[in-house]
Amino acid sequence: MKKISLLLITISFLTAAPKTSVIFMIGDGMGPAYTSAYRYYKDDPKTPKVEPTVFDEMLVGMNTTYSENSLITDSAAAATALATGYKTKNGFIGATEKPHSQVKTLLEYAKEQGYITAMAVTSTLTHATPAGFISKEHHRDKEADIAKDFFPATAKEKLKFDFLMGGGEIHFNEAYGDINQTAKKHNVALYRNGYDFDSIHNYPFIAFTAYDYAKFAIDEKDENRDRVSKMTQKALSLVENKPFFMMIEGSQIDWCGHINDIACAMAEMDDFAKAVEKVKNYVDTHPDTLLIVTADHSTGGLAIGDKIGKSDKVSDEIRSRSYIWYKDVIKKVKASSITIAEALRTTKNIDKSFENYTGIDLTDKEYDQLASAMKKKDKKLCNAVNEIINQRSNTGWTTHGHTLVDVETFAYGKSSEKFRGLLDNTDIAKKLFKVLSAGK
Amino acid sequence: MKKISLLLITISFLTAAPKTSVIFMIGDGMGPAYTSAYRYYKDDPKTPKVEPTVFDEMLVGMNTTYSENSLITDSAAAATALATGYKTKNGFIGATEKPHSQVKTLLEYAKEQGYITAMAVTSTLTHATPAGFISKEHHRDKEADIAKDFFPATAKEKLKFDFLMGGGEIHFNEAYGDINQTAKKHNVALYRNGYDFDSIHNYPFIAFTAYDYAKFAIDEKDENRDRVSKMTQKALSLVENKPFFMMIEGSQIDWCGHINDIACAMAEMDDFAKAVEKVKNYVDTHPDTLLIVTADHSTGGLAIGDKIGKSDKVSDEIRSRSYIWYKDVIKKVKASSITIAEALRTTKNIDKSFENYTGIDLTDKEYDQLASAMKKKDKKLCNAVNEIINQRSNTGWTTHGHTLVDVETFAYGKSSEKFRGLLDNTDIAKKLFKVLSAGK
Repeated sequence: MKKISLLLITISFLTAAPKTSVIFMIGDGMGPAYTSAYRYYKDDPKTPKVEPTVFDEMLVGMNTTYSENSLITDSAAAATALATGYKTKNGFIGATEKPHSQVKTLLEYAKEQGYITAMAVTSTLTHATPAGFISKEHHRDKEADIAKDFFPATAKEKLKFDFLMGGGEIHFNEAYGDINQTAKKHNVALYRNGYDFDSIHNYPFIAFTAYDYAKFAIDEKDENRDRVSKMTQKALSLVENKPFFMMIEGSQIDWCGHINDIACAMAEMDDFAKAVEKVKNYVDTHPDTLLIVTADHSTGGLAIGDKIGKSDKVSDEIRSRSYIWYKDVIKKVKASSITIAEALRTTKNIDKSFENYTGIDLTDKEYDQLASAMKKKDKKLCNAVNEIINQRSNTGWTTHGHTLVDVETFAYGKSSEKFRGLLDNTDIAKKLFKVLSAGK
Repeated sequence: MKKISLLLITISFLTAAPKTSVIFMIGDGMGPAYTSAYRYYKDDPKTPKVEPTVFDEMLVGMNTTYSENSLITDSAAAATALATGYKTKNGFIGATEKPHSQVKTLLEYAKEQGYITAMAVTSTLTHATPAGFISKEHHRDKEADIAKDFFPATAKEKLKFDFLMGGGEIHFNEAYGDINQTAKKHNVALYRNGYDFDSIHNYPFIAFTAYDYAKFAIDEKDENRDRVSKMTQKALSLVENKPFFMMIEGSQIDWCGHINDIACAMAEMDDFAKAVEKVKNYVDTHPDTLLIVTADHSTGGLAIGDKIGKSDKVSDEIRSRSYIWYKDVIKKVKASSITIAEALRTTKNIDKSFENYTGIDLTDKEYDQLASAMKKKDKKLCNAVNEIINQRSNTGWTTHGHTLVDVETFAYGKSSEKFRGLLDNTDIAKKLFKVLSAGK
C-alpha cells in the first residue's frame, strides 16, 4: 500500500499543471475611445471592411476604475488596484491607509512563488503604474522615495525584480546618491543604451531608457518609435521557457491624453498595439501563458465626433461631412504638440514651421490663435497647436484630467475566459493572484 | 423499419427545441460613458462598494458602429445595421443603396416565421430606430413616407407588426390622411391614453403615447417617468407564453445627449434601466428567451471628469476635489434644460426660477451667462443652462452630434454566450436572425 501511495503522489506531482506565466499590459489612460479611434486610424481606406486591431481580437469585458475616495481615479490608486486587488486613495502607491497599510503586489507574490519578475515602461520606473507594483508610498509624486523601495536594505535580502526597463534614472540617484553603487551591491547590472538592448544577455539588470522622461513615440527617431515593442521583444527573449510575471506599460498614451494631443496619442497606441501583437504571438506558441491587457482609466475625455447638432440648420452635404473623422489630418502630424510649440517659439516663420510639422496651411484665424498663444506661457501655445489639429480632424476632448468611464479588459491564452464580463479593477488583480498561485 | 423511422421522426419533432423569443433593447446614444455614469449616479454613497446596475450583470462585449459612408454613424444607418445585418449610408432606413436596395429586417423575418412582433419606443414610431425595423426609405427625416411603410397596401396582406407603442401619430395622419380609417381597414385598434394601457387586452394595435414627440422622462409627472418600463410590462403581459420578437428603445437618451443635458440623460437611463430589469426578470422565468441590450452609437462625447491638468499648479486639496463628479448637482435638477429655458423666458425672477428647477444659487457670472443667452435664440439659453450644470458637476461633452466609440453589448438568457467579444453591429443582427430561425 505504501508503494502505491508513493506512486500516486509521484504521478500527481509529475502531472500537476505547470505554472502560468502572466504578461500584464497596461495602456495608461487607454479608455474605450482610444481603442475605437485607433482602429479607424489604422484602417485601410482602400478596403470596404474596417480591419480589426489586435485589441479587437481579445476583448472579453470591461472593468470599473473608481478609487477609494473618488469616482475618478488617478494612476496611483488605479495601479494599486490592478497590482494588489485593493482600492486605495488617489495618490497612494501600493498601499492603503488602513487596515493593511502595505499590501502585497502581484510582482512581489510572483517573486515569492519563484517566478521571474520584470517590468518595462515608457514612463520613469518610479511613475505611478510601475511604482504600484513594487513600492509602498502615500505620495505618488515623491519619485525618489518610490525609488528607495526598489532595492532591499541589505544585499542579503532578495530583490523583488529580475529586470526593469524604463526611464527615470534621476530618481534612483536622488534616492541612493549614486545608483551605480547600489546596483553593484545587489549585483544588478545597469544599462544606458536607449532602446538598444543587444548587449543584455543576463539578469538581474535595470535598463534605463532615459535619464529622466523618455520621449514621446511621435518625437522619436523612426527606428525608436516602436519602443514598447523593443522592450517587450527583449523581455520575452530573456524569460523564454521559465515561468514569469511581467508588467508592460504603454505609459505615455495617458500623457498625450492629458495635453489633448491626438497625433501623439495615436502614435503611442501604435507602439503599444505592436507590443501587444508580439505578446499575443508569443502566447500562441507558449500555451501556459496568459496575456491581460487593460487600462488604468481613460484620459482627456477623448471623443471622435462632429460639432454639428441635429437641430442645426445645415445642408445635407455639410451634415454628412460633419459625421466624419478627418484622420488624414492626424496622420500628417510629425511631432508632439510640445515639440511643435517649442519649434514655433524659435522660428521666424510660424506658417512655414507649422506646415512642416503638420501639413496644415494655416488660415488667418488659426495663425492669430497661435500668435496670441505665443505671448503667453508654453502650455497655452501647446494647447493652441492641439486646438487647430483637433478642430480640423473633428477630435474632441473634455478635460486635461481623467474620466470615470469603464475601460476594456482584453485577455488571451490560458485562463483568459476568467476575465469575462464586467469586473472591478481589483477583481483583475484578485484573479491574477489565483492564476499565479496555481501550478507547480 | 417504416414504423421505427416514423417513430424517430415523431420523437425528433416532439423533442425539437422550441423557438427562442427575442427582446432587443436599444438605448439610443447610450455609449460606455452613459452606462458608467449611470452606475455612479445611482450608487448609494452610504455603502463603501459601488452597487452594480442591471447592465453590469449582463456585459458580454462591445460592438462597432461605423456606417457605410462614415466612421461616425447616424441613427438611421445604425438602426438598419442592427435590424438587418447590412451596413448602409447615414440617413438610410432599412435599405441599402445597392445591390439589395431593400433588405429584410429581424421584425419582418420574425413575422414570417410565426413570431408575434412588437415595438415600444419613446420617440415617434417613425423615428430612425423603430423605422429601421419596418420601413424602407432613403431619407430618415421623411417620417410621413416612413409611416406609409407600416401598413400594407391592401387589407388582404399580412401586417408586419402585432402591436406598437410610441409617439408620432402626426406622421401617420400625414401619411394616410386619417390614420383611423387605415387602422380600421387593417383591423388595428388605436389607443391614445398616454402610458395607461389598462384597457388593452388584444392585438393588433397601435398605442400612440403622444401625438408628436413624447416628453422627456425628467419633464414627465412622477408616475410617468418610468414610461419604457410601463410599455415593457404591458408588452410582456400580452405575449406571455408565445414566441415573440420585440424591439424596445430608450429613444431619448440620445436626445438628452444631443443637447448635452446630463440630468435629462440620467433620467432617461433610469427609465431604460428599469425596463431592462423587468425584461431580465422575465427571462429568469422564461428560459426560451434571449435579451440583447445595446446602443446604436454614443452621443455628445459625454465624459465625466475634471478640468484640471496634471501640470496645473493647484493644491493637493483642490486637485483631489477636481477628480470628483458632483452628481448631487445633477440629482437636484427637476426638468430638462429645454423646459428650464422656457421657464426662464417667462419669469421676472431668473435667479429664483433657476434655483427652483436646479437647486443652484447662481453666481453673478452664471447669472450674466444666462442673461446674455436670453437675448439670443432659444437654443443658446438651453446651452447656457446646461453649461452651468455641466460645469458645476464636472460633466464634459465634446459635441452636439454622435461619436465613433464602440458601444457595449449586453446579453442575457438563451444563446447569450454567442454575443461575446467584439462584434460589428451587423453581427448582432446576423446572430439574431440565426436565433430566430432555430426551433419549431
